[in-house]
Amino acid sequence: MSNQLKLGLPAGSLQDATAELFRKAGYKVTFASRSYYPTIDDPDIHCTLIRAQEMARYVRDGSLDCGLTGHDWVVENDAEKDVVELAELVFSKVSRRPVRWVLAVPNDSPIQTPKDLQGKRIATEVVNITRKWLASHGVTASVEFSWGATEVKPPKLADAIVEVTETGSSLKANNLRIVADLLTSTTRFIANPAAAADPWKRQKMDDLVLMLKGAMAAEGKVGLMMNVPREKQAAVVALLPGHKPTLSALSDPEWVDVLVILTENEVRQLIPSLKRAGACGIVEFPLNKVID
Amino acid sequence: MSNQLKLGLPAGSLQDATAELFRKAGYKVTFASRSYYPTIDDPDIHCTLIRAQEMARYVRDGSLDCGLTGHDWVVENDAEKDVVELAELVFSKVSRRPVRWVLAVPNDSPIQTPKDLQGKRIATEVVNITRKWLASHGVTASVEFSWGATEVKPPKLADAIVEVTETGSSLKANNLRIVADLLTSTTRFIANPAAAADPWKRQKMDDLVLMLKGAMAAEGKVGLMMNVPREKQAAVVALLPGHKPTLSALSDPEWVDVLVILTENEVRQLIPSLKRAGACGIVEFPLNKVID
Amino acid sequence: MSNQLKLGLPAGSLQDATAELFRKAGYKVTFASRSYYPTIDDPDIHCTLIRAQEMARYVRDGSLDCGLTGHDWVVENDAEKDVVELAELVFSKVSRRPVRWVLAVPNDSPIQTPKDLQGKRIATEVVNITRKWLASHGVTASVEFSWGATEVKPPKLADAIVEVTETGSSLKANNLRIVADLLTSTTRFIANPAAAADPWKRQKMDDLVLMLKGAMAAEGKVGLMMNVPREKQAAVVALLPGHKPTLSALSDPEWVDVLVILTENEVRQLIPSLKRAGACGIVEFPLNKVID
Amino acid sequence: MSNQLKLGLPAGSLQDATAELFRKAGYKVTFASRSYYPTIDDPDIHCTLIRAQEMARYVRDGSLDCGLTGHDWVVENDAEKDVVELAELVFSKVSRRPVRWVLAVPNDSPIQTPKDLQGKRIATEVVNITRKWLASHGVTASVEFSWGATEVKPPKLADAIVEVTETGSSLKANNLRIVADLLTSTTRFIANPAAAADPWKRQKMDDLVLMLKGAMAAEGKVGLMMNVPREKQAAVVALLPGHKPTLSALSDPEWVDVLVILTENEVRQLIPSLKRAGACGIVEFPLNKVID
Amino acid sequence: MSNQLKLGLPAGSLQDATAELFRKAGYKVTFASRSYYPTIDDPDIHCTLIRAQEMARYVRDGSLDCGLTGHDWVVENDAEKDVVELAELVFSKVSRRPVRWVLAVPNDSPIQTPKDLQGKRIATEVVNITRKWLASHGVTASVEFSWGATEVKPPKLADAIVEVTETGSSLKANNLRIVADLLTSTTRFIANPAAAADPWKRQKMDDLVLMLKGAMAAEGKVGLMMNVPREKQAAVVALLPGHKPTLSALSDPEWVDVLVILTENEVRQLIPSLKRAGACGIVEFPLNKVID
Amino acid sequence: MSNQLKLGLPAGSLQDATAELFRKAGYKVTFASRSYYPTIDDPDIHCTLIRAQEMARYVRDGSLDCGLTGHDWVVENDAEKDVVELAELVFSKVSRRPVRWVLAVPNDSPIQTPKDLQGKRIATEVVNITRKWLASHGVTASVEFSWGATEVKPPKLADAIVEVTETGSSLKANNLRIVADLLTSTTRFIANPAAAADPWKRQKMDDLVLMLKGAMAAEGKVGLMMNVPREKQAAVVALLPGHKPTLSALSDPEWVDVLVILTENEVRQLIPSLKRAGACGIVEFPLNKVID
Repeated sequence: MSNQLKLGLPAGSLQDATAELFRKAGYKVTFASRSYYPTIDDPDIHCTLIRAQEMARYVRDGSLDCGLTGHDWVVENDAEKDVVELAELVFSKVSRRPVRWVLAVPNDSPIQTPKDLQGKRIATEVVNITRKWLASHGVTASVEFSWGATEVKPPKLADAIVEVTETGSSLKANNLRIVADLLTSTTRFIANPAAAADPWKRQKMDDLVLMLKGAMAAEGKVGLMMNVPREKQAAVVALLPGHKPTLSALSDPEWVDVLVILTENEVRQLIPSLKRAGACGIVEFPLNKVID
Repeated sequence: MSNQLKLGLPAGSLQDATAELFRKAGYKVTFASRSYYPTIDDPDIHCTLIRAQEMARYVRDGSLDCGLTGHDWVVENDAEKDVVELAELVFSKVSRRPVRWVLAVPNDSPIQTPKDLQGKRIATEVVNITRKWLASHGVTASVEFSWGATEVKPPKLADAIVEVTETGSSLKANNLRIVADLLTSTTRFIANPAAAADPWKRQKMDDLVLMLKGAMAAEGKVGLMMNVPREKQAAVVALLPGHKPTLSALSDPEWVDVLVILTENEVRQLIPSLKRAGACGIVEFPLNKVID
Repeated sequence: MSNQLKLGLPAGSLQDATAELFRKAGYKVTFASRSYYPTIDDPDIHCTLIRAQEMARYVRDGSLDCGLTGHDWVVENDAEKDVVELAELVFSKVSRRPVRWVLAVPNDSPIQTPKDLQGKRIATEVVNITRKWLASHGVTASVEFSWGATEVKPPKLADAIVEVTETGSSLKANNLRIVADLLTSTTRFIANPAAAADPWKRQKMDDLVLMLKGAMAAEGKVGLMMNVPREKQAAVVALLPGHKPTLSALSDPEWVDVLVILTENEVRQLIPSLKRAGACGIVEFPLNKVID
Repeated sequence: MSNQLKLGLPAGSLQDATAELFRKAGYKVTFASRSYYPTIDDPDIHCTLIRAQEMARYVRDGSLDCGLTGHDWVVENDAEKDVVELAELVFSKVSRRPVRWVLAVPNDSPIQTPKDLQGKRIATEVVNITRKWLASHGVTASVEFSWGATEVKPPKLADAIVEVTETGSSLKANNLRIVADLLTSTTRFIANPAAAADPWKRQKMDDLVLMLKGAMAAEGKVGLMMNVPREKQAAVVALLPGHKPTLSALSDPEWVDVLVILTENEVRQLIPSLKRAGACGIVEFPLNKVID
Repeated sequence: MSNQLKLGLPAGSLQDATAELFRKAGYKVTFASRSYYPTIDDPDIHCTLIRAQEMARYVRDGSLDCGLTGHDWVVENDAEKDVVELAELVFSKVSRRPVRWVLAVPNDSPIQTPKDLQGKRIATEVVNITRKWLASHGVTASVEFSWGATEVKPPKLADAIVEVTETGSSLKANNLRIVADLLTSTTRFIANPAAAADPWKRQKMDDLVLMLKGAMAAEGKVGLMMNVPREKQAAVVALLPGHKPTLSALSDPEWVDVLVILTENEVRQLIPSLKRAGACGIVEFPLNKVID
Repeated sequence: MSNQLKLGLPAGSLQDATAELFRKAGYKVTFASRSYYPTIDDPDIHCTLIRAQEMARYVRDGSLDCGLTGHDWVVENDAEKDVVELAELVFSKVSRRPVRWVLAVPNDSPIQTPKDLQGKRIATEVVNITRKWLASHGVTASVEFSWGATEVKPPKLADAIVEVTETGSSLKANNLRIVADLLTSTTRFIANPAAAADPWKRQKMDDLVLMLKGAMAAEGKVGLMMNVPREKQAAVVALLPGHKPTLSALSDPEWVDVLVILTENEVRQLIPSLKRAGACGIVEFPLNKVID
């Protein structure tokens, strides 16, 4: 069926954050317990919940037209040349990525460089990425698939691990030291090449990506409105470099209304200065979406 | 006392949704545990929690000036001609009605039409509605009041039931089939006729209804602001048929600011088109109330 | 270090409300379990969690530059002349103060006036405030520090208590009667005098106070936008005395856009009148901060 | 089918307490959400969840062989002569009954005796019990079915109520005063007369009642074991009047082992005395069932 | 170190049930968050949390002396000949196994026998078990490792799956039909052969297994004590075939005390009969461990 | 009133553990929210909730006859000679004491001995204990009452602290080092001397203490029953040194029944040995109270 878009959503820890992002973008995704086919309030889209690890596999073979997954799992599935990455999505707390895949060893391990891994046991969830990286360093080692709790394995159950980390705190808590960075990854919107070449599907995916990006752009952003006397307009606007304030005419020709979109952090820096520069009636209000 | 409005609020499953609706309308209703007289931050109003089933009874006899209840319970209490329905309120998830009262029988029952109910046992919470409906079909049957779990009764404890349903899923789960629709119902704001004729009370009720409707109208609605070059204004406005966008003059005479109120569903359809038509700096923001 | 502001935040029941207020003001305060040094996303500020009872002590001796605490604890620590109160902060539900410190006795106690306390046992958390107040009335009594549950002590464990109250309901529930008011208190932003005299620290504290007040001012406030025909502009504006509506020119010269900031309570009073006066397309939207 | 017992279990507030009682009696009852046919691990029994208010109706007409319900609802359904009460079950906290149905009026009501109810409005869930009681006093009044929150209705929505109470605290909290007791009620195991006359069903019901009573009898009971020198046996046993201690021979003929079943309250009274009388090695252990 | 036993405990869903079983067996296992080395109150034992899927791998290579895991994962790791299974442990609700690994296909799939799988895509967590089974049927198919949600994959993402099931309800909910059983599995206590040959470690493991089995044997078991007149002793004992009641002499030579260990299900069958046969003072009490 | 015992129970963190201990001892203590007079199911006792810190004060002055509190707070209130300690109670997890009051300083502090504290600032909840201890070392320092979070104060807000610790982990987490031990404390049952001299009150307190101790003695204890052939009786009993097993005669003179009370830790050591020595039918059962 040409006019339905088969979309894969990542099951598991990112599931709720994904639904929240779609909600902010204007799409209502509803999960039913025990069902892996969430409903979405757009009859043109059919959703399937799939583990992020397998997404690229099913987008590549056309079972799905597109999906959200990490760049890491695209690489692990050897699918970089077989799928199209339409957008990078860096959204909401749960997935505040990028994440790093690193090779780590116990603090007191003699291993200092990739070469020292020769003949060692390495536990990891990303067996392919690890093997390719070892090969690129001309090193031979035993790479074992780890079902979980990878960071607890050294030194008894493994000599080194390749594991994902954001802040490094879990590694530190397990007395591990980073030897090398293998890959940095963020969430991507990937598409099957044939689907990306189909005009209807491409339009649908582009529109969806535009809305998702609009919702992400609004995170941490607010609107600021203020009244400014005409003669102070230049001074106020000068405080807003890099922004494009909207200046509205008021009934009273002596005054102008200034509206500008800012991050919350900028606001607390700017408000005292704006007030000193002559702005008054300053009001901050929340935003849902920002599309430049 | 002429200058106090006695308002009945539905106790039970609709209680929190009702308080939320009032909150959005600008009224703070506070429930105290074990008390059936919620406080409201308007000294002109005195609230009483009453089961929806009994609301019409007490509005009819003047114990209350007005109240919120379902149209079904107005009919069950035979009060259609004795109370005034000032507004239909279709609010928030919990009460996303209308609900249907249907006559249902087991999937394998021989009962196919109302006539087949002659001499059967029917269990229901709405004994009067059921009896009137049977009479209108010239059928005589035994109608028993059901205290709950009505849908589990056929076929052992009843031959048929009259039960409320929204999606039909509970009926389906109990292997029941719908034979007939008796009544469709939504929540109403009802008033005692004498109260509706008292100018002070009528004004108070009309204002309250206006605010409740304003809050309901804002559900799912958002505001969209954008900057548009004068020469593209017509193209952009043409994308918004049926809406009344507010066009504001900007300091720069080459540009205009367009503000429009839309549903969230419209937004995701329109933003890509608006952008293609020349709008920029598109910002979506949330709304509390919308009063046309 | 001159360019870091040492800020004390009240530990305990006000902790979450304080963090929420800072969040609304644009600062992200994060608590880690077991740590009393919350992080804040402003590198110029260093936070310490301190019990409100001790805040004035540490601001006075310069261990902290500034902090939030109740006026009552400033007085109890005899620090009124040793610290500077930069602002009064009346924020969010949890701390909807002012609170009153009152002297209470059992309903059936013979004690009616301060004089009757001569020789009695008084239990209280504010031993100094109580002793000074007794001295001002020329009364001698035994004042014992109470570790908690003060209101349950009379008549067996104390003859009278000095206790904090907001609504008096806890006193009533314990059959206590108020004999006298000793002190009324709200939360204050206090500073060490030397810090208040340091230009960099003073600027930093003034900016912080401005943002906190902006966030508090927005509580319960909303923005109201409406379209008004020119000829009805005067009538509509007349309904908004004491407010400063912003009147924007629209593309259609026959119409004007009115924007005004109101409390939620005013809104429900005004909307029906505004509509009757000719306003249309009335929209209410939420606000984050209001800085006059 | 002669060899299956159709058992009704009360739905709602007693549901979990009933399952717990059955569990203690050795039967595992499992509720599935949305199903009103709980499973029980005895293939001879088929369970149905029914509201206590309707139980007698369906046991009377043979839809069920037996069920648990309150005596009050047997009376309200006019079924006292049509069903057999096989046992009184006073179990676990939730149903620590008996409950009383009382007629109550506002504290300041002029109503003092049943006669004063002439012509008044009475709200109640037990319309039949109330009407019969009024008739027995030669009084005519309007009795209206109350869907809930009955105790809040006087004085505005009713002149008096007939309501269930255990401690009277809810009545007191609503400023109501008890005028008369109409009925005292406990939970009963009721049977259809034909089922009670069927030997297989009667045996099954008697065994079930025996186990339920054994489980109830063990509540608050414990076993006490102790070693006693022969010469002090009489003194120890004399402290246990009304109990039947088991005296076991020990290998050492100078000593005897005493085992007795007591309530927890007796234990704390007796242990100090038993120790003084010469018992030693006193050990208390928990019990599951006690069948005399 | 010869005198420490390295014990692997299964991480994840069985973790709490395992700790509970150990607790009943008399060992206190404590998990600390973020640590994979639970503490146990026996200094001779060192615990490591390991995913059940990997347990056999690490017991085989001697990283661990012993561990608990499913027989299925022993087979999947090809470790049946490399580890010793010391005991089968069928414990507590969470792991009420055995579980079955089955090959399932959509209800409407043409696949009816193993032969029909030729050339198909099979998704599974147990790639090795599946490949061996296919080989034993002379079938070649594509077996893909599934990261989860396997049962949702047919028919779009796989033609068949090999998945674990207890009741089959999840398969049914996904419209799948079982074609073949591949393996039945329960939890096992496995040991490294060298550890099993070490006398100290073997004794330690045998004692641990004895206590675990004693705790499991007590689940659902209770003790029953009763007094029986000598002349009815034979009749009472005759009701307990297959059990070994303990008959104690009482001080009164006309009576005997009977104690017997039974399952809860037997109790409810036997008590009525025992009472009819002359037993009195029947008391049921709970048990912690039962070791024959 | 001579025949009522006024008992103080510690409010706050020990409250639930205290109620649980009383429950195990056979007394039901019920807390009502907002009331500080818990009910107890013994009409001879009247309970009052009091902070442990103040208990000794009110037992000393006779407001209470007796109470539970820590030995530390007896000392802090200077009440060691004014109250009688009837028993030491070491109960349940929450209060697994003894606790230690220690003087601690930052790890890198120059303070090494008590003498080094001369002229320093010390923060603590136990001002009196600290002052006496300093005096005993001939040291003068500033001791300030700390309202909480004491361990976070060094080095900025204090030079040293006197704080309570069980495991030392909180001190370690705050980088503090212990310099000296001031006091070790456990929970005590204290009495007013006059009450302890009153025969009725003394008997009541002694009985209560006996039951509390019986409940505490049963924690972690279990009963073990087994059948033993006469000829192996000596070998089995030899495995139980320090215990007093009860040997019961069985009907079969060749066998004897052995019953012994053990800790759970002993059980897991003994069962394998007992089995090897010839015991069979070993059964472990739980205990509520143990009174030697």
